[in-house]
Amino acid sequence: MIEDKILIVGLGLIGGSYAEALTNAGFQVGAIDVNRELIGYALAKGIIAEGTVQLDKEFISKYRLIVFCLYPNAFVGWIKAHQDLIAPGTLITDVSGVKVPVVYEVQRILRPDLEFISAHPMAGRERSGVANSDSSVFKGANYLVTPTACNTLPAIEKCKELGRRMGFGKISELSPEEHDEMIGFLSQLTHCVAVSLMTCRETSLMAKYSGDSFRDLTRIAAINETMWSELFLLNRDVLIHQIDLFVSSMETLRKAIENGDTETLKSVMRDSSRKREQFDKK
Amino acid sequence: MIEDKILIVGLGLIGGSYAEALTNAGFQVGAIDVNRELIGYALAKGIIAEGTVQLDKEFISKYRLIVFCLYPNAFVGWIKAHQDLIAPGTLITDVSGVKVPVVYEVQRILRPDLEFISAHPMAGRERSGVANSDSSVFKGANYLVTPTACNTLPAIEKCKELGRRMGFGKISELSPEEHDEMIGFLSQLTHCVAVSLMTCRETSLMAKYSGDSFRDLTRIAAINETMWSELFLLNRDVLIHQIDLFVSSMETLRKAIENGDTETLKSVMRDSSRKREQFDKK
Repeated sequence: MIEDKILIVGLGLIGGSYAEALTNAGFQVGAIDVNRELIGYALAKGIIAEGTVQLDKEFISKYRLIVFCLYPNAFVGWIKAHQDLIAPGTLITDVSGVKVPVVYEVQRILRPDLEFISAHPMAGRERSGVANSDSSVFKGANYLVTPTACNTLPAIEKCKELGRRMGFGKISELSPEEHDEMIGFLSQLTHCVAVSLMTCRETSLMAKYSGDSFRDLTRIAAINETMWSELFLLNRDVLIHQIDLFVSSMETLRKAIENGDTETLKSVMRDSSRKREQFDKK
Repeated sequence: MIEDKILIVGLGLIGGSYAEALTNAGFQVGAIDVNRELIGYALAKGIIAEGTVQLDKEFISKYRLIVFCLYPNAFVGWIKAHQDLIAPGTLITDVSGVKVPVVYEVQRILRPDLEFISAHPMAGRERSGVANSDSSVFKGANYLVTPTACNTLPAIEKCKELGRRMGFGKISELSPEEHDEMIGFLSQLTHCVAVSLMTCRETSLMAKYSGDSFRDLTRIAAINETMWSELFLLNRDVLIHQIDLFVSSMETLRKAIENGDTETLKSVMRDSSRKREQFDKK
């Protein structure tokens, strides 16, 4: 059984959306954030029942389930500095977009009477902050749980249940390594591509001619530079490999175009159409 | 004043959508296609008033306004082979996605008693054929007219009026060269990027983890290989230049990631976010 009371640490876009989803699901949600205004906003909006800017052991130790909605490095730093505030037996989860450098480090330094099971809600928006939070983005989205040998079966099940209760469509389990390899391609490479498309040339006279293709391919080029530069660097080797694969494909097209090689162009495009079918929303 | 009767040559996705839009706007629309079934379909659907698979001078010369909805090379070929079927004084327009190699060639070979004014409806779908046609894709979309020194003011105005009557949101005028430079970036490069993203690696296990970002960036990776390979090759030099600019931006990101250069990453992302704002739909 999952706890009635859940503590959210960090009221950003995802923290706020978790708070809303969990409050709507009937949980009593508390929150901690360094910014008093965000706590006030979330209280006024009714998406948390209580909140504080203090690192208060009495407050924190009321909760046996804590979700850290911080950037990865801040999360690891919080655990290092403040884990003594957490009650024994508490289950900790997170929302980090990169797993290998986060999961093993937190599990290594965590007190033995606590458990950390990591998760990644694959949903978001091109805006940050609790004021833009919206739990409807979770509806039908993917929720990934990345257990390691350190995790217990009850914790894994509880973490998945959390995803289900927030309305995620598909709950999957994979290793931190599989997660980072997949996310390096599906998410990080796509953000690199969108940013490069948006910045590779002067575009000030182009906006009025734009069709939906360019708009779709650059939607995520409006990007939170603090979070994404951190995520890119935490998954450096995987991402560089994905960039190299992608650039190599671009060079194949370039060469075919230069040589007037219609057959290669058509063959690559047929492959593309065939593979894209698998990604249609079911 | 625009003619009451309009002939569409080629009932593909765009030809069919033009037929529907123009019939809805009150025009009497005729059609020619090599495929009898497509004519039958369009007649049954009520988006054309008459149609034929014959190259019949009597039929064609009833029309003083003809829209060629063929691929670029097929359009130029049709004019070369069959322009004697067209009545003197007829205005011809088209929907070609590339302009420089089409416009000057057609204007060069065209009989002096005909006029060709070229246009590009910037709308479409990831499916082809009249059965997928849908004139609602024009609503709010861009319609580009690319006149040259050969064109008369009345013809340019009539061509623009055609776009307005079909429901396009913005009607713009630019030179064939400006058009191809712009389209090489906004449309052709984006299709190269989507195709490369979709084909650069094995993805069969990835579909179930995909978020909206990857789905959005590869929507156009389901691609009509015959049309797009023709468009790419007709705009070869422009497109190769755009690919080089884009790959160079990818290399800048790659280098910053490899060097752990957070400042460069953030600076590129800030530039990206700022530039992307101009492309938000008004």
